[in-house]
Amino acid sequence: MASSNGFHVCVIGLGSMGMGAARSCIAAGLQTYGVDLNPAARDALREAGAVEVGTDAGAFADRLDAVLLLLVNAAQCRAVLFGENGLAAKLRPGTGVMVSSTIAVADAKEIEKGLSERGLLMLDAPVSGGAAKAAAGQMTVMAAGPRAAFDRLRPVLDAVAGKVYEIGETAGLGATVKIIHQLLAGVHIAAGAEAMALAARASIPLDLMYDVVTNAAGNSWMFENRMKHVVDGDYTPRSAVDIFVKDLRLVTETGLSLNFPLPLATTAYSMFANASNAGYGKLDDAAVIKSFAGIRLPGDEEGQ
Amino acid sequence: MASSNGFHVCVIGLGSMGMGAARSCIAAGLQTYGVDLNPAARDALREAGAVEVGTDAGAFADRLDAVLLLLVNAAQCRAVLFGENGLAAKLRPGTGVMVSSTIAVADAKEIEKGLSERGLLMLDAPVSGGAAKAAAGQMTVMAAGPRAAFDRLRPVLDAVAGKVYEIGETAGLGATVKIIHQLLAGVHIAAGAEAMALAARASIPLDLMYDVVTNAAGNSWMFENRMKHVVDGDYTPRSAVDIFVKDLRLVTETGLSLNFPLPLATTAYSMFANASNAGYGKLDDAAVIKSFAGIRLPGDEEGQ
Repeated sequence: MASSNGFHVCVIGLGSMGMGAARSCIAAGLQTYGVDLNPAARDALREAGAVEVGTDAGAFADRLDAVLLLLVNAAQCRAVLFGENGLAAKLRPGTGVMVSSTIAVADAKEIEKGLSERGLLMLDAPVSGGAAKAAAGQMTVMAAGPRAAFDRLRPVLDAVAGKVYEIGETAGLGATVKIIHQLLAGVHIAAGAEAMALAARASIPLDLMYDVVTNAAGNSWMFENRMKHVVDGDYTPRSAVDIFVKDLRLVTETGLSLNFPLPLATTAYSMFANASNAGYGKLDDAAVIKSFAGIRLPGDEEGQ
Repeated sequence: MASSNGFHVCVIGLGSMGMGAARSCIAAGLQTYGVDLNPAARDALREAGAVEVGTDAGAFADRLDAVLLLLVNAAQCRAVLFGENGLAAKLRPGTGVMVSSTIAVADAKEIEKGLSERGLLMLDAPVSGGAAKAAAGQMTVMAAGPRAAFDRLRPVLDAVAGKVYEIGETAGLGATVKIIHQLLAGVHIAAGAEAMALAARASIPLDLMYDVVTNAAGNSWMFENRMKHVVDGDYTPRSAVDIFVKDLRLVTETGLSLNFPLPLATTAYSMFANASNAGYGKLDDAAVIKSFAGIRLPGDEEGQ
């Protein structure tokens, strides 16, 4: 393997998580490349010290020791790796590919199969922590894959992660743990919205309700973080309703694939899907509360 | 009003919360009385320094400045206050009555009406925090009532509460805030159980899943506290499944009374009711996970 100073990694997908991860790789002294369709994201990463950026990784694929995928979904991962002009065929055998998007278990397994057929080492490694932790190189990584993949990707894990959970050797275990985590995250946002909507209906001041809950056993990480947006009437998207439509769909599909009932998660999925269909999909995920009719919330116009 | 040293308070209902509150009153120097049907609880409080204990408060009712009710439900509160040999008729006008059981809004209003007709000052004041906070005199109190009731009960509030939320003047507002808090508490326990059950079904080690969630944004106070019991396979009741059958029933009835949908709370109610009907009602509330079939949990017998 190349020395850490000579370690070449490309981050594909320079959204809030990918951009943070790429900057963390630069900060750790890795030779860092970036790929995104958005020119502003490419410019920002070049500015930050990337070796090279582009709309695909073809031009520098044969130099890479590692690839980190932080795309929106499995379809994008498949297109980049195996589509027209696909990257998998251009990487050197033994290159590590860390797939960190939140994807279905079946997709993780299928992508692993395609990569291993080309002699590439995949880590099924979803991440958590949000943009702030990504920027600080402190993401939580839930990783599954063969020992060789962990070893190959060690410099990247050291650069981007505050905590790495090694879940097992089989592709799909990382995806499963992330999906179960998202079950909780999504249900907690929806439950927070339901509770605050009921408070509004019962004429309880929402700032008081927020204060009580965050100082008592009914609190959750998501309640404390997201219901503040409701109290402030500020739905500027930090994470959007449509992200949880996607993630709770993955949760629901996981339950179906295991023939296992998930009464709360499927209910929360319906609440986010309904909010999206009502036109709130691009707003902050706390806007799931807006699908409750018959209440007035902070920030609502008079007479609404 | 009597000086603080000469302030006489009776705690009715010496369960884990009531016993803690009564001991906190003694520790604060109040002249403390205790009422419970359980002789062991009465003996324990007498031992701890109570002035007098009994199966009802009739013998010392005319000495009391305040009464604190920490009974299981509204029916018990009504029986003690207005039933045969009822206490309300024996208290001096101006005595403060703090009703801290978790009860329905309509019940809080009805009890307030009965008390005020007899010249008594009611505080609708549910509490939160569990046995440990009660024992430490650090309960969270969500209180509504007239200024005179707050004033009259100040020595008791100072003795038992770490934090007092003054929600308003109208009886029922305290009950409402507590019920909304219990919506979150109950949904979070049920969501934790659903997530851990899915992890078991997907062959994810539960201790690893617990570790990931408690270090990430999917965490809740209840997940961290209650799912530890699942990881340990220990369902010794700290709070029982049947308590949440009762509390989520109150949540559901509150939604119905306000003509307001509560999709997650009603689903969680069904999960707890199903667990109770399956025979787990007296176990720790984390045992709601046992109603998920087709999984093996820590502590399950081989071959189950």
